[in-house]
Amino acid sequence: MTNKYDTLRAIRWDNDQLYLLDQRKLPHDYEEIELNTATDVAWAIKEMVVRGAPAIGITAAYGVVLAARRAYSENPNTWKVFIETELNALMHSRPTAVNLSWALRRMRSVFNHIEGDPEPLLLQEAHNIHQEDIDANYAMGAAGAALLPINCSVLTHCNTGSLATGGYGTALGVIRSGYADGRVVQVFADETRPWFQGARLTAWELMQDKIPVTLLPDSAAATLMRQKKVQWVIVGADRITANGDVANKIGTYSVAVLARQHGVKFMVVAPSSTVDIQLTHGDDIPIEERPAIEVLTAVGQQVAPDHATVWNPSFDVTPAELIDVIVTERGVVEQPNMEKMLSLMGGHAPAAVSA
Amino acid sequence: MTNKYDTLRAIRWDNDQLYLLDQRKLPHDYEEIELNTATDVAWAIKEMVVRGAPAIGITAAYGVVLAARRAYSENPNTWKVFIETELNALMHSRPTAVNLSWALRRMRSVFNHIEGDPEPLLLQEAHNIHQEDIDANYAMGAAGAALLPINCSVLTHCNTGSLATGGYGTALGVIRSGYADGRVVQVFADETRPWFQGARLTAWELMQDKIPVTLLPDSAAATLMRQKKVQWVIVGADRITANGDVANKIGTYSVAVLARQHGVKFMVVAPSSTVDIQLTHGDDIPIEERPAIEVLTAVGQQVAPDHATVWNPSFDVTPAELIDVIVTERGVVEQPNMEKMLSLMGGHAPAAVSA
Repeated sequence: MTNKYDTLRAIRWDNDQLYLLDQRKLPHDYEEIELNTATDVAWAIKEMVVRGAPAIGITAAYGVVLAARRAYSENPNTWKVFIETELNALMHSRPTAVNLSWALRRMRSVFNHIEGDPEPLLLQEAHNIHQEDIDANYAMGAAGAALLPINCSVLTHCNTGSLATGGYGTALGVIRSGYADGRVVQVFADETRPWFQGARLTAWELMQDKIPVTLLPDSAAATLMRQKKVQWVIVGADRITANGDVANKIGTYSVAVLARQHGVKFMVVAPSSTVDIQLTHGDDIPIEERPAIEVLTAVGQQVAPDHATVWNPSFDVTPAELIDVIVTERGVVEQPNMEKMLSLMGGHAPAAVSA
Repeated sequence: MTNKYDTLRAIRWDNDQLYLLDQRKLPHDYEEIELNTATDVAWAIKEMVVRGAPAIGITAAYGVVLAARRAYSENPNTWKVFIETELNALMHSRPTAVNLSWALRRMRSVFNHIEGDPEPLLLQEAHNIHQEDIDANYAMGAAGAALLPINCSVLTHCNTGSLATGGYGTALGVIRSGYADGRVVQVFADETRPWFQGARLTAWELMQDKIPVTLLPDSAAATLMRQKKVQWVIVGADRITANGDVANKIGTYSVAVLARQHGVKFMVVAPSSTVDIQLTHGDDIPIEERPAIEVLTAVGQQVAPDHATVWNPSFDVTPAELIDVIVTERGVVEQPNMEKMLSLMGGHAPAAVSA
């Protein structure tokens, strides 16, 4: 499946090597980093060379391939034991996006079927994960766009495009599909401090696609809504719990509260790999707090006084009751709640709830 | 009146010259700029060498002294005519803070009493405006602090301290007074994109006073409230209309909506020079939109792609119904409305309303 609004790839496997586009340097420098070990992949995830929940999952899957390559070359008979240290490093590279553990679990499920060199089968599974994510994005793009009125202006937060996923994007996939069929005519992008994903990545992706985008400070979103300049907020997710609560980039909850107050609709777009039905409530999600330096500085320049105290939670939790619709590749859930989410996932209620 | 929590002065008249602390360079460089003409003063206000509604008013008053000095030296008999060009430049240096036109009107009111060299009388009036602002800040500090419970944590937005006023501060004056008497124990400061007044100025002022301050991205304020980490929001104002609506730094309205949703109290602190009873509603206030470069960059470093479209409103309007109390040096107005504001100001309803 192809689309004219999608040319970027954040993650590339080529000639037996993994290449990540260094998103810390965008949009000013376009540089790929070649990664040869899973330890380096864990570093790249932690340092946000690659970011975005689906992209982190895919990257970790390729990381398992590299881990297996090394473990097998060093210990052909016991590689499944020796791979554990690097799998552990991947697992703990970032805590909030559940796609990471999902991808590792899926890669592990292949281990049992492997005899001899594990690389071909694991690489095939990593490619599957990558391609399925792209396919899911196109499916969600169509399903989400269908919910929008024509001539709609939308607000998005952070970056959920090709750079955050296998390709095309989750929330940005809906926006791309919506623009292609005339439903979305204008995108507003929160700049998304402290890492400026909106300014550096979302504006850049949309400008390449010639989709009209206007950048604003995060704190201006309330006035944007008060002036009735947007009808929908469309965001991604890093983890969705069984009750439909959503962890996403810090500021998402703020936008959700403001949207409800101003009669603006709120859509979350995420593949089912982002849904964690083991957790009952959003408050159970581990929220990463990143280093103070991200707030003390801006694009590498010091802003605040030396030694200023900082609170830098990287994500927040939006309760299900503020969400009008969750779009996944498995289907659309309006007014999400536990019953609907479990039905979508074909799962059972977490033990604490069913008890 | 003195207080141990106040050593800074943004505006200094010394040896017949005006000196402004260059707030664009804080906290990394502490540099004063000497200003010799009102045209330069208008430039300094426009470029935000000095900012903050009360400080802008005081600076403009000293600007009138410099304008009169030049006009009188060039045209001793007709200086009141020739001063108009520079008064006009001052008047239009920034549109939103009404303290600017208030100060100019007050300086003009002295013109009629002047014979001969205008400088001594005008300088006296500028000094009066400056000192009255400091006195008002101490009065508001005490009145506002008295409204707070003991062991209270507060959130503030932008900078409203010594740097934004004649000295001591409006919202930050309340925080200083509240800290001095044990009511405020912890301050959270929004970093306040795009100009980072919170990171660069508020954190810096409070750290000098050894008042505990934690800096956060603007978009994290909602989660701060959800986690019940603050009980009050305390902010300043650039203009307050007859009905109690408040224009203040972009993001204030967002914080006000969030505060109401989370049961957090919302206090506005501003001298009566900020009240514009000629305007009925906040929607009548001219809202400055500043250059895109402020959002395209951060502390001088490029963030966004070249030629990205930006929306950069510098202020927003918080409707009176979201405000629990307005503190002025004339008194405290709880649940502000037009009747109470007009009573406070001893004024009459604007024509459009009384008609």
